[in-house]
Amino acid sequence: MEEIQNLETPRILRMNHGIGDQSYATNSISQRKYQSGSRPLLHRAVAALCAADLPSAIAVADLGCSSGPNALFALSEIVGVIHRRCCGDPPELMVFLNDLVENDFNSVFRGLSKFCENLKEKNGGGSSVLRECFVAGVPGSFYGRLFPFKSLHFVHSSSSLHWLSQVPRELMNEKGKGIRNKGKIFISKTSPSEVIEAYYGQFKKDFNCFLESRSKEVVSGGRMVLTFRGRRQPDPCPDETCLLWDYLGLAFQALVHQGLIEEEKLDNYNTPYYEPYMEDVKKEIEKEGSFKIENLEIIALPWDGVNKDGESCERSKTTQQMAKAIQAVNESMIRSHFGGEIIEPLFKRFREIMEADTKEVEHVSLVVSLVRKEL
Amino acid sequence: MEEIQNLETPRILRMNHGIGDQSYATNSISQRKYQSGSRPLLHRAVAALCAADLPSAIAVADLGCSSGPNALFALSEIVGVIHRRCCGDPPELMVFLNDLVENDFNSVFRGLSKFCENLKEKNGGGSSVLRECFVAGVPGSFYGRLFPFKSLHFVHSSSSLHWLSQVPRELMNEKGKGIRNKGKIFISKTSPSEVIEAYYGQFKKDFNCFLESRSKEVVSGGRMVLTFRGRRQPDPCPDETCLLWDYLGLAFQALVHQGLIEEEKLDNYNTPYYEPYMEDVKKEIEKEGSFKIENLEIIALPWDGVNKDGESCERSKTTQQMAKAIQAVNESMIRSHFGGEIIEPLFKRFREIMEADTKEVEHVSLVVSLVRKEL
Repeated sequence: MEEIQNLETPRILRMNHGIGDQSYATNSISQRKYQSGSRPLLHRAVAALCAADLPSAIAVADLGCSSGPNALFALSEIVGVIHRRCCGDPPELMVFLNDLVENDFNSVFRGLSKFCENLKEKNGGGSSVLRECFVAGVPGSFYGRLFPFKSLHFVHSSSSLHWLSQVPRELMNEKGKGIRNKGKIFISKTSPSEVIEAYYGQFKKDFNCFLESRSKEVVSGGRMVLTFRGRRQPDPCPDETCLLWDYLGLAFQALVHQGLIEEEKLDNYNTPYYEPYMEDVKKEIEKEGSFKIENLEIIALPWDGVNKDGESCERSKTTQQMAKAIQAVNESMIRSHFGGEIIEPLFKRFREIMEADTKEVEHVSLVVSLVRKEL
Repeated sequence: MEEIQNLETPRILRMNHGIGDQSYATNSISQRKYQSGSRPLLHRAVAALCAADLPSAIAVADLGCSSGPNALFALSEIVGVIHRRCCGDPPELMVFLNDLVENDFNSVFRGLSKFCENLKEKNGGGSSVLRECFVAGVPGSFYGRLFPFKSLHFVHSSSSLHWLSQVPRELMNEKGKGIRNKGKIFISKTSPSEVIEAYYGQFKKDFNCFLESRSKEVVSGGRMVLTFRGRRQPDPCPDETCLLWDYLGLAFQALVHQGLIEEEKLDNYNTPYYEPYMEDVKKEIEKEGSFKIENLEIIALPWDGVNKDGESCERSKTTQQMAKAIQAVNESMIRSHFGGEIIEPLFKRFREIMEADTKEVEHVSLVVSLVRKEL
């Protein structure tokens, strides 16, 4: 039996494919709301880019685009702003949609032609929207170089940078003698401080790698708008960050008690995820040094923000939606470590545990708007 | 019943997905051999590019990359040449892999990491091969713009440009009263001259559109190497061009006699394909005017060139392989017009007809190497 967790995020992390009931496309409402919440900062950043001396072609990258209705959000917004700002002589636009290799690029590409038609309609039709808008898919991890030197003018990333490049190596060495995070799958109030340190260390390493890679790729004066889950408080284990992961940990423990999962297998599973404190984000950006922070804002969705706007927000409905949303992003990793047969009982139990409790937390993301300093 | 053929190539033309017995990946041996045959011209063109004053990043596009083992051929060859020519200060390389939206980009992307490892090994390992090599997928028809103005340094296309953007409109107007190409699915010796004219006209329109689009995208001094099926003789219906399509037409007619296909449905089906005469290719390039022809060569594969090198070349083996190869590229279009149930009997009959005959023809492609003139 394979006891060691596959530590490499790129091979195992992918949002659930397709458009069915368990798919990411159907269960990414909160991600959509963070996108909407980041819209003012995004618009301001694109407008600032348009105010500068623009080349005849602008290259835009959306990092961690996923698939489903959210994949083309940034493209749509950015085209809209450019359309309004540069109506005289609009630039050509090259948009790069990036995600990990396992992302369903085929479905993103199939959605493009319909999307482009809608876009033209929305922006008054005809070819006046942009002279031309070209789209490419770029497979690979954004914790490393993806584009040539000084080739990008604008970078957008939403609901992606909270995924680490890997589970912190300290949590599991090759003989299974790493730091144990007993019965948990993420940082929790009961986690040893080494676990918290290991996660923090991995975040710093990854985020620095992200910034260094982008610093090579983005032109002077180029801009980035990054939205990702984060903390507004220094405490590394606030309920806002940990509650849902604790519930999921309890569901795992229940399956251990039922004999569906071996205890050791659970102890060896951790999620490559981190919600950094906003001040730590600032600190890392300043330390790396290539980007100036224009804005940093907080978006807090209410407890029932996983539901569609205007939908009933009673707890049972919310927890049902929450379970689907968490399954849509975690299933590929859980399946790879534990096998597919535990998925159904796990998420059933997860939902029951959430429903039996009464706690509510807000879901917090950070939006940071950056400018590439002069080279 | 839908009598009218869907004329639009982009929606219906795609090579068979996957890696199974009927897949394009398994049945694209002749396409591979044309690639090998075009290698000397390709190498010379890349070397000439390297001899010029190179920017720090080169953008290369492979148009009609398909999926399977051939998809990364150009990338591999081009990296190899650059490695040998620019060993002091190699440029960064951005490679765009293009094909129609329905192409299986997911499988191309999944093959990339293994491919990159092999590439590094082959070229002596380490990061010395290239500073960096970045890859993107670009969905869309190359009979139109795909990239920003002056953004490409090198364009490669192999076994793709013989596919037209659509079935010539003259062959089928909306009320089904177009020119009839009785019992045939492509140009044949028995086709009325209007059929031949319509195909020739579509080729000229499409090829001109291809050249005009590329003329905007390719920088001055940039290069293109294009390999596609073509004729070395002015006769529009030589056996070299028509024999296999005639066999397939006979197989269709057999299914009409068996009552599996309605006659009218066959009369309304034509293949969006053309093999231009080499002098017409030259003429169109000169007429469009943006590119200078450096070389134009002919690659003729023998009758049994669809088999793997060194494999038995008796007629039954060859026709079996030929039937699979033709099925792998035509199935999606035939399925879309006639339905899936005729595929098996059609290609069985096709093979029997080929096997019962004794004619042999060579399979001819043209390779043309072009330089973008100064703007």
